[in-house]
Order: sequence, then structure tokens, then C-alpha cells
Amino acid sequence: MSTVWGSKIKLTIFGESHSEAIGVVIDNLPAGIKLDIDEINREMARRAPNGGEFSTPRKEGDKVEIVSGYFEGKTTGTPLCGIIRNTNTKSGDYAQLKSVFRPGHSDYGYYLKSGGNNDYRGGGHSSGRLTATLVFCGAICKQLLRKKGIEIGAHIKSIKDISDKTFDVNIDKEFLKSLTHEVLPLIDKSVYEPMRETILDAKSQGDSVGGCIECAITGLDGGIGEPFFESIESKLASLLFSVPAVKGVQFGKGYELTKMYGSQANDSFEYKDGKVITSTNNNGGILGGLSTGMPVVFDVAIKPTPSIFKEQNTIDVSKKENTKLSLKGRHDSCIVVRAVPVIEAVSAIAVYDLIKD
Amino acid sequence: MSTVWGSKIKLTIFGESHSEAIGVVIDNLPAGIKLDIDEINREMARRAPNGGEFSTPRKEGDKVEIVSGYFEGKTTGTPLCGIIRNTNTKSGDYAQLKSVFRPGHSDYGYYLKSGGNNDYRGGGHSSGRLTATLVFCGAICKQLLRKKGIEIGAHIKSIKDISDKTFDVNIDKEFLKSLTHEVLPLIDKSVYEPMRETILDAKSQGDSVGGCIECAITGLDGGIGEPFFESIESKLASLLFSVPAVKGVQFGKGYELTKMYGSQANDSFEYKDGKVITSTNNNGGILGGLSTGMPVVFDVAIKPTPSIFKEQNTIDVSKKENTKLSLKGRHDSCIVVRAVPVIEAVSAIAVYDLIKD
Amino acid sequence: MSTVWGSKIKLTIFGESHSEAIGVVIDNLPAGIKLDIDEINREMARRAPNGGEFSTPRKEGDKVEIVSGYFEGKTTGTPLCGIIRNTNTKSGDYAQLKSVFRPGHSDYGYYLKSGGNNDYRGGGHSSGRLTATLVFCGAICKQLLRKKGIEIGAHIKSIKDISDKTFDVNIDKEFLKSLTHEVLPLIDKSVYEPMRETILDAKSQGDSVGGCIECAITGLDGGIGEPFFESIESKLASLLFSVPAVKGVQFGKGYELTKMYGSQANDSFEYKDGKVITSTNNNGGILGGLSTGMPVVFDVAIKPTPSIFKEQNTIDVSKKENTKLSLKGRHDSCIVVRAVPVIEAVSAIAVYDLIKD
Amino acid sequence: MSTVWGSKIKLTIFGESHSEAIGVVIDNLPAGIKLDIDEINREMARRAPNGGEFSTPRKEGDKVEIVSGYFEGKTTGTPLCGIIRNTNTKSGDYAQLKSVFRPGHSDYGYYLKSGGNNDYRGGGHSSGRLTATLVFCGAICKQLLRKKGIEIGAHIKSIKDISDKTFDVNIDKEFLKSLTHEVLPLIDKSVYEPMRETILDAKSQGDSVGGCIECAITGLDGGIGEPFFESIESKLASLLFSVPAVKGVQFGKGYELTKMYGSQANDSFEYKDGKVITSTNNNGGILGGLSTGMPVVFDVAIKPTPSIFKEQNTIDVSKKENTKLSLKGRHDSCIVVRAVPVIEAVSAIAVYDLIKD
Repeated sequence: MSTVWGSKIKLTIFGESHSEAIGVVIDNLPAGIKLDIDEINREMARRAPNGGEFSTPRKEGDKVEIVSGYFEGKTTGTPLCGIIRNTNTKSGDYAQLKSVFRPGHSDYGYYLKSGGNNDYRGGGHSSGRLTATLVFCGAICKQLLRKKGIEIGAHIKSIKDISDKTFDVNIDKEFLKSLTHEVLPLIDKSVYEPMRETILDAKSQGDSVGGCIECAITGLDGGIGEPFFESIESKLASLLFSVPAVKGVQFGKGYELTKMYGSQANDSFEYKDGKVITSTNNNGGILGGLSTGMPVVFDVAIKPTPSIFKEQNTIDVSKKENTKLSLKGRHDSCIVVRAVPVIEAVSAIAVYDLIKD
Repeated sequence: MSTVWGSKIKLTIFGESHSEAIGVVIDNLPAGIKLDIDEINREMARRAPNGGEFSTPRKEGDKVEIVSGYFEGKTTGTPLCGIIRNTNTKSGDYAQLKSVFRPGHSDYGYYLKSGGNNDYRGGGHSSGRLTATLVFCGAICKQLLRKKGIEIGAHIKSIKDISDKTFDVNIDKEFLKSLTHEVLPLIDKSVYEPMRETILDAKSQGDSVGGCIECAITGLDGGIGEPFFESIESKLASLLFSVPAVKGVQFGKGYELTKMYGSQANDSFEYKDGKVITSTNNNGGILGGLSTGMPVVFDVAIKPTPSIFKEQNTIDVSKKENTKLSLKGRHDSCIVVRAVPVIEAVSAIAVYDLIKD
Repeated sequence: MSTVWGSKIKLTIFGESHSEAIGVVIDNLPAGIKLDIDEINREMARRAPNGGEFSTPRKEGDKVEIVSGYFEGKTTGTPLCGIIRNTNTKSGDYAQLKSVFRPGHSDYGYYLKSGGNNDYRGGGHSSGRLTATLVFCGAICKQLLRKKGIEIGAHIKSIKDISDKTFDVNIDKEFLKSLTHEVLPLIDKSVYEPMRETILDAKSQGDSVGGCIECAITGLDGGIGEPFFESIESKLASLLFSVPAVKGVQFGKGYELTKMYGSQANDSFEYKDGKVITSTNNNGGILGGLSTGMPVVFDVAIKPTPSIFKEQNTIDVSKKENTKLSLKGRHDSCIVVRAVPVIEAVSAIAVYDLIKD
Repeated sequence: MSTVWGSKIKLTIFGESHSEAIGVVIDNLPAGIKLDIDEINREMARRAPNGGEFSTPRKEGDKVEIVSGYFEGKTTGTPLCGIIRNTNTKSGDYAQLKSVFRPGHSDYGYYLKSGGNNDYRGGGHSSGRLTATLVFCGAICKQLLRKKGIEIGAHIKSIKDISDKTFDVNIDKEFLKSLTHEVLPLIDKSVYEPMRETILDAKSQGDSVGGCIECAITGLDGGIGEPFFESIESKLASLLFSVPAVKGVQFGKGYELTKMYGSQANDSFEYKDGKVITSTNNNGGILGGLSTGMPVVFDVAIKPTPSIFKEQNTIDVSKKENTKLSLKGRHDSCIVVRAVPVIEAVSAIAVYDLIKD
């Protein structure tokens, strides 16, 4: 099943880019939790297209209507369903895409999978728009995690060739929080301008760029997680790779570890001020699938937005012939920016599912 | 739940490095399938420590006893359980590890998780030994996939700084199969010697090295997979990250994609000899979570074996103090070699779970 | 998790009696299926309160809005979500029930479970109203089953002391279908009047009555089902007992079998016109959890509606004292009538989950 | 999937009557629990055939070997696997059953389901023998429940026409425990002799009898359970109907409730000595799927053992013709006796899965 996820909570997502609505049902939330709706709306706004310079001109309110599981300002413990109406849809833009498939998109796969019965408008069910449901769910999980001292934040590690610094071994909670208030969350603010230019340059060419997002989870106790199929890495990766455009995930030093000796890669344990820590955190706070008590750190590779305005080679299945495609419409030239809150959100969901009592 | 996995099949693994036995139950296999037991044993032998120059001197037969679900040489469609007795165990080697934790291992996490009730001998349940159960299950899935024209093979992409070539866009099935007969499966045989030296050099220093394994799945039809939580990437990654020591996974060009323009990263569709292909395969045969019909290609980063013979800093929880640890016993200085059949196996399991009727 | 069900399909239900909406997400339906919306609406109307003599005067349209997974009149294979707005709600009726619990209802359990945070209006999430989502889902499954020659129908086996006949060993498909068009579906029409009187008599006293519903599934091939946890009996029972007010389920002759000798209870196999049948069907078409190819037959016991107008003893938790309760509002005096389509619906869901390719 | 069950724990069963072994894997047990192995063995012995007057002469030790998840006398929190070897098997008895199906058994269904590849010896996977794995798992759950003040016990409510009394509204824990030490557990000891005669009489005729088992769960807090799909009734019923030969399940007064008025069926709440109770317990301690805090009470209908020695009509699929079958071998003439610990066991499993932290 594709659209039900979780062990301790269950989330079920539904909807297409141009269907009546998209939404999510979250089952098994605790009862009696006051939700900070403003904070949820703020998270939704971080992801929503806002017409800004880094975003598609398509503007969507992404207003969530909570239709169940919420009573007198608190969760009831029954399934909480949030629905987002699809209002600002220009279905006309997509008519030709019924048989002419966009390179880099899932259109062709869905065409095959559904025997031609897919809703091809705007990517249908596999549209990035569906990540709004994950951000909503993640915003709730973040609030639940915060009650347990767990904070999640991310920054843009790179856009094309422009790289930010990476997280230190010790990560300050307030700094993580502060990142969520920035358009381009960065550790080294001096890369803001070159990143901005890289994105706008691609935009001006009708092209797109990708990048990496580094995410950290602080405050997670040691000994959380499971071996094998529910290792923290497995659990996070299964959700991270659910996010459209994510093509790589690495924990701690990840691929760099393959170039090290074991004696360099191993993180020594030590008592410091009566607490167990590791002197380094090359393993990203996870050993054998379980947390060590150090920050959980990982990054994801996000490919360039496949929707570009340059002419591309593709096929037309209705005519069974090769053809050219020039996309019109409204697209992000760098989806990395709007992906940051999504990566945080799915991380929050994964961690909450691991630690829920 | 950590030890039950799958949608269409369910596999349940159990066992500790030094418990009576390890094993796996595979539910929902089709009935009436003749298994090639020799082939299964060959796959088991690829992973088993064999006392060779790249392996720990610990020798284990890894003989699987099939105790159910198999009758008169065929599957019955009921749960097939395979059990491997733990015979060649030297529990004495591990006595000190009850309270002194090996850096880079899960011992500390398990200590916390179980309140000190973990079976600390040889890594307990999180031991790499458990991957024998996955190889057994994978060997069965490989046979089932082969009936549908699907072949899986892998090579060592790199050991420390020594790199093999990578797979071409088109991958020959027979070549994939032939890789499974080599000790160090490589595309460019000329790197065999430098790789061998890198491993033996680390070994002679009492140290270890890691590397990358690239894996390919050919013959998979387009339109397989699901969006989001059961994307091919999510499904594969959840199993790949279950394999101890895997710290990174990337599909297609993975992290390299983040440096490309969209116009470079997109794989154009074209008709060729009446068949739909993509001209390049930067996305590793997967778009929006669904297969394109091109080979599914990905690689994993495997960290250096954490068990090294050099003295390391760590803690002793029984004394609540810092201490030094010098490991004795038998360990691989490069686990990448024995990980190759494991990566193939979990890939076979993931793909079979996706395509089973 | 309470609200996600299924192996091959997954259904997720949500909503409370007085929340904004109730609904259901159905995952993994096949793509390209034309739905007969009129037929779905007819099924919804069978369950909906209609102000008739056997029903609560509360009238609800129960109009389902399909918000996803449905495009150009066909399923897309992505999650299909149906939403029903709660419009005709008189929340004022329920104010006193926050702390004074209705005997026979789940209010007290929910109060405990949620720490007093439950939506107590109209039974909240455990309201019979939620069965509308099951009827919607069941109506879709019925259409899918019909394509495979499977028909499901039910009749009222008894209301209090008044009993209908039971199904014959052979059950005609057209007869089953015809039952779904009657207000009180009966095999022996002569019991209509005494049943009607029994219900109206209870109504006039402000009391309620229960009864039994017998259901049959025809056209199911032999060899369907699984042993143990997914036996047809387990699967059906888990859904049948999900229906509020069901307190007993028996298959075939059920409890009567306990009075027979084995030689009487066993159904002999025989070839008849080249087909395998059983001469009798005491086991209700199920042996060892698997279908025999004979009609699957079972009945359920439905308790009298707990909402009655007679004064009852209960407690007030706000005052921690015993008290009296006289319910007002609109209630069914015999829920059996409206339960018939619900029993059929969940049976259709269970069977479809078993036979889906 | 047929053989994996549970939400908070997962149990996976495997094996056939005449395969090498049967067994069970229990995942997600808490770590650090000392198991009373003698008590487990005592439970196993209650179910095992012992050559006594009510049992098949087939004697099986049913000795469980715990091969994982158990270290130094305590659970480790990793999957606990228990294996029971099949030793006393006379496969020769079953040779003719490959194509001649026993009435009342699952042989024909399995033949169809597996395309003739089923292990037909002794009922294969659907053999009652598999319930030994459930008793083992239940014995562990009982010990875990006892730590929380929850006790489970059952008595034989009836054998054919001979009926015991039923449980009172208030049930004494010690009395429940004492029932588990009797061969024919009864409330009214005076029915022992007539029950015994009924069974032995059937035995002497080469026939069999069935009966009902009533089970009670005391000490369960109110507010446990979930609405709908994980109602206590659904959860218990899904396991109870997994037990071979169970054909009916009713909670509280069950089918009797259908003859009552609502005013009679409703259980009034009242404060008594500061505690909330219901004056009656017609609903068997469950309302709307949730516990009320009263004892959970239900009974199951168990059909007569289908294995009888009288000649029966059946078919031979190898010859495609009708034939006669006279069973030889060793069979119980009343499986109800040995089913008592099985019913208790699955009840313990279901309840533990509901209340586990």
C-alpha cells in the first residue's frame, strides 16, 4: 500500500494536484493535546508557493480544514483528518500531457501503472503538492516532539556548486529553531547571495537547479530505534525517499565514511560532565540503527526540478512517435527551497513514530 | 516492529549472534515452486565467513534447515521457515563487552534500550550475522524474479580511494549474473589488485576500510512501484539501511544530480525499435517512485568495519568511567566484500514484494 | 491502530457524529473502474435515516463527495477519498452527556480513554453514523465483486422473538439482489407484519428491540482465505464486530453445531454435474478458514438500540454520584433494519480484500 | 497475510503437522522479563495430547526450544522464537488423503489454494497442532498480564446437550486460576460425570461431539480498546476464529440480547464503594468496542471434531469420482477439552496486544 505509513501512528494521504482536495488522516494521536494552529499555518506557508523570487508564481493558500479528531481546541485521540481544497488550478495547462510525457516526471510510469487512467493534470497523485499533507502532519508531530525536548531543523547544504557549512558536532536547539524562520536557511549567511544568483540564473535560462538539505534532530535519547527494518535510518529513509525529487540520503559523514579507516570513522564514547557522549559524530547519532544520544544528522540530495522551459525530447504515446515538448505554466526553478520544511516534516513524523509511548 | 517486513510477502527474522539459532519466516510465497537448493547454498556461501584473505577467520557453515512450508521439493504456499544453528561461537571472547562498549557498534544503544538485558555477545540481535537470514530469503526471491525475467547483480564500486567503473546505461543480464561468481566483483578487473592491497594493508595495521557497492536490477517493467511511502526508492532504502554498516544510499546519479541543471539531469524519453527507453538513465530507472523500464541502479555507502584491533577510547558503564578497549577475536577488515550478496539479497526481496501478483 | 483496515486494500475511516465531516480513504483500488454512482447512492440511502416508521426522525442526506482518486468517471488507482459533511446536527441535544453516561453506549469508555477529551456529542467517533463510510466503501467493493460473479445479500433473520426462515443450501443470486430492495428484507414475507408490530410496539413504549441478520455470499470460488489469522471467519468477524451493536457472529449452523455429532455436522463432498459441492452446508461454506465453493453463510446478533426514552440509572462523573437519565432526541427503536446494508457492506469489503488480484 | 498478527506485538507462526517443526516468533516483547518456564510447560501440557480418556492416543511432548530473544533467563526485547519439533508423526496414516478429502476438514480448500502442492499429512499447516504455538505465546502473555492484575480463565460451558452454569457478574480471580488446573474445568462440578459420559459415548461410536467454552478476563481497566477495527470484540474474534473448529463467538449475553428490550439489555452504571461498576454485565464488559472495567466475558462454539471413524461420503479428485472414506489413525472425540487452554491463550494474546505500553 502506498499511502498508509507508520507503526505507532498511521498516516494516510490522499489527493491529486487537481482533484477536489488533498488531505491526510492521522490515526492514534494522543488525546487532549492543544495544537498551535498559528504555528501549523506558518509551517504550511513555508512550503506553499508564495509568488516570491524562488517560487512558482502559482499561489496556493494551503489552508487546512481539520474535519475530525479535534474538539474544543484539543485532539480527541480519534483520527484527525485535515483537508486542503485545490482551488488555484489551471487544468488547461496540462491537456497535452495526457500522452506526451514530461522527462524527469512520473507521468509515464503512472500512465503504464493505471492503464492510461491516471489523472495526468499537474502530476496527479505524485505531485509535489501532496507534500503539503506531510507538512501539516509534521507540524503536529513537531509540537508533540517539542514537549519531549526534541527539536528538528534543516539548512540548505548546497545549491548546485554553492555550498554552505555543515552542522557542528554540537547543535544548539535555538539555532535550529531560528533556521525555520529564514527563506534560505543557512549556517554561513555569506553564501546567501551566490545561492540566490545561482537559482535566479537558472530561472532566467528557463532551466532549474538542485541541491542538498542537511537536517538535524536534537534531544533524542540514546537507545531509540530498532534493529534492521525499523532502524532509524530505514525509517527516516523510507519517508525521505517518499518526498518527490529526493535521490540520495546519507547519515553522518555518509559517503565520506567509505574513504576513512575504521580508526578514523569510529566515534569514541566518553563520559563528559557525567553524561555519555561521543567525541565525534561521524555516524550521525545512529549506530546499528539505534540512537546514541548525539544529534541525528543526515542530508538528502534533491535533483533539479524536472519541469523546465527549455525544449526537450520525449514521446507521444497516442501517436507512438518521438516528439518535442516545451512546457508552459508555473514551476519552481529550484525546489530545494520549498523542500526544506518538507524534509523537516517527514523527519518529525518518523521520529514521533519511533518515540511515541 | 523491527523484525517483520513487507506488503505482499512478510518476512520475520529472529536470532542473536550467539543464541541457539537465527532464522527467518517467509510468508505468502507462491505454492508449487521448486527451489534450487544448490543455488541457495551458493548464495549463503558468498556471504559466510570462509577463512579467505578478505574474511574473518571465523568459519560458519550457515547451513539452512527448512523446517516448514516446503514439501516434496516444492513450496506449499504456507510460511517457509529457515533456521541456521549458531555453532562456531566463542562466547568467551565477548565477556568484557557487557559494560565496555565498542565504538561504532550498537552495543551502547542496546544496553540502553533493553535496560542492560541485551545479549551482548557478538552484537546480539544486531550482529551482521543476521544478514544470513536475508541472503536466504533473497536467494529465494531471486529465483522467483528470474522466472519473470528480472536479474539482480552488484559490483564493488569502491574500496576506500580505489574506484571501479560504474554500470553503463545498458546492462547485460549475463554480465550481472557473472558478477555473482567473483570474490571481488568488478567491472574493470584492473582494479582488483589495488583494491586487494588496500584491504590487506588495513588488515595488517589492525584497521579496517569501507567502500561502495553499486547494484543493478534489470528486466523490471515500467510502471512498477507506488508513489510516496512505497516508492521503489523508499522500499529499497528501507531494506538497504537495514543492512548493518550502510550509511548512504543514492539512486541513479544521486548526489551528482544536485550539481546538474534540470536540462542535464532529465532523461529524455524516446521510441527505439518500438520500445520506450530513456536516452540516459540519470534517475536510475525510477521517476516519481515508479519504474521507467530502464535498469534500476543505485549504490550504497558502507562504512569501515567498526571492529578494529587498534586501541580505542570508550566507556565502562559498570564503573562509570572512561577506559581503553583493545578488541580481540576474529573480524573482517573490509565488510564490503561479504556485503555484496546481502545488498543483492535485500534488493531482490524489495523488488519481489513490489511485483508479486 | 483503530481506523485502518485491510491487507490488499486499506481503508481508513475518520470523523465524529458532530465533527465537520466523516469520511473514508480507500487505498489500492484498481485503476480504470467505472463506478455506478446511482447504485452507491442507493446503498447510502438504505442506511441513512429517512424519517420512515422504522427509523429515527433525524434525516441525513449522506451525500458522499469523492475528492480524490476518481477522474473522468473512473478510478485512477490512487487513494479514493469520500467525504460526508455533517449537516443536520443538533449538538445541543447532547450537552448533558459530557459527564452523564448513557447505559449501553461507549461514552464512559471514551471518557476514560481520552481523559475526558472525547467529543461526546452523539457518540463521537463511535457513533453508528460512521457506518455510512463503510457502506460507501462496501458499495464500491460490491461492484468490484459483481464483476467476478460474487453477490452478497442479507435478510432479517429475527427481530426479538419473531423469526424469518433461514437461507437454503442453494441460494439464488437474483433473490439475494432482490432482498436489497426491501425495507424489511425477508425470506418469508408473512413475518413482515409481526416484525413491524414488534418494532412499533417497542417504539411506542420508548423502548427498543434487537435481532439477527443472516448474510450470504455466493459465487466465491473454493480455496479462498488463509489459515489462522486471515481465515475467512477471522476476517469477516473482525469487520462484523466493528459494526456498533453486533454482539455475536456465527458461521453456518454456528452454535447449533455444538449440539450435533461429528457425523451430522460434517458436510459430505460430492461431484454433482462435474462440479464439487457439499451435500449440506452446516459449515457455512468455510472449512479450516478457507472457502469450499459453497455459499458463505453467517449471521450476526444485534443488540437492542441502547438509546431508549425510558428513565435509566447511571452516574454523573462531574458530581461523582449516581443519577437518573432520560434521553431526549431522535433515535431508532430498532437499529437492525438500518444495519442490514452495513452488514452487507463490511462483508463485501472483507471478501474483496481476500480475492483482489 | 495469514500468519503474522498483532499491532503492538507481532506474532508469526509457522509449521505443518508433519513438517520438521512448528514454531512462533514473538516480536516486541519487553526486555528483562523473567519467564516462568515451568508454568509455560504446564500450559503446553494442558493442550498436548496426553493419551488420557478425552484425548487422542497420539502423544506429543510439545517441548518448546527457545532459540532467540532470551538470555540468562530473561527476555532481551528482541524477537523470541520458540520451536517445537514434530517427532511423533505417522505420515503413513495420511497417504490416501492426498486426493480423498476428509469432510469437515480444510484439505479440499488447501488442495485448491495450493494447486495440489499442499502438505496433506495431518492437515498440514491448518492442523490443530499449530495451536501449540499459540498456547506458548499465550502463556508468555498471561505472565505479562498477571503483572498488571489481569487474569484469564475459561470453563466448558457445554458439551453437546450437557450444560454447565455460566459465570456470575462478579468473577473471582482465584477461581479463574483454579479452573486451569482441571481436566474438565467446570463451575458446577456435578455436570462432570454426564459430560464425561457424553464424550466417551461418542468415542465408543467412532463419532465426535462439540461444545461451548466460556472465557473471562478480569482486571482489565475501563477505556481499553479502540472503536471499529480494533474493538475488543474485533480483536478477540479475529484470534478466536483463528482457532480451528470455532464457528461462533458471542460477547456477554450475545444472541440472547436479541430477544431483550433495550431497557433490559442496557447495563446501568453506578458508583459502588467509590468505584464505577455496571449493575449487570449483559454486554460482557465491552461497550462500543471499549472495556467498561467489568469482566470481559464471551463464549465460543466449537464444532464436533471432523475426524470420525464412521464411514463418510466424499470425493477422490485423482479419479474425479465420488467415494467413501473411513478414517484410521488417532483423533480426539471431543476437541473442546484441549481447546480450553487455546481459547485462554489467544485471549491473552489479544488483550496483551491491546494494553501493552
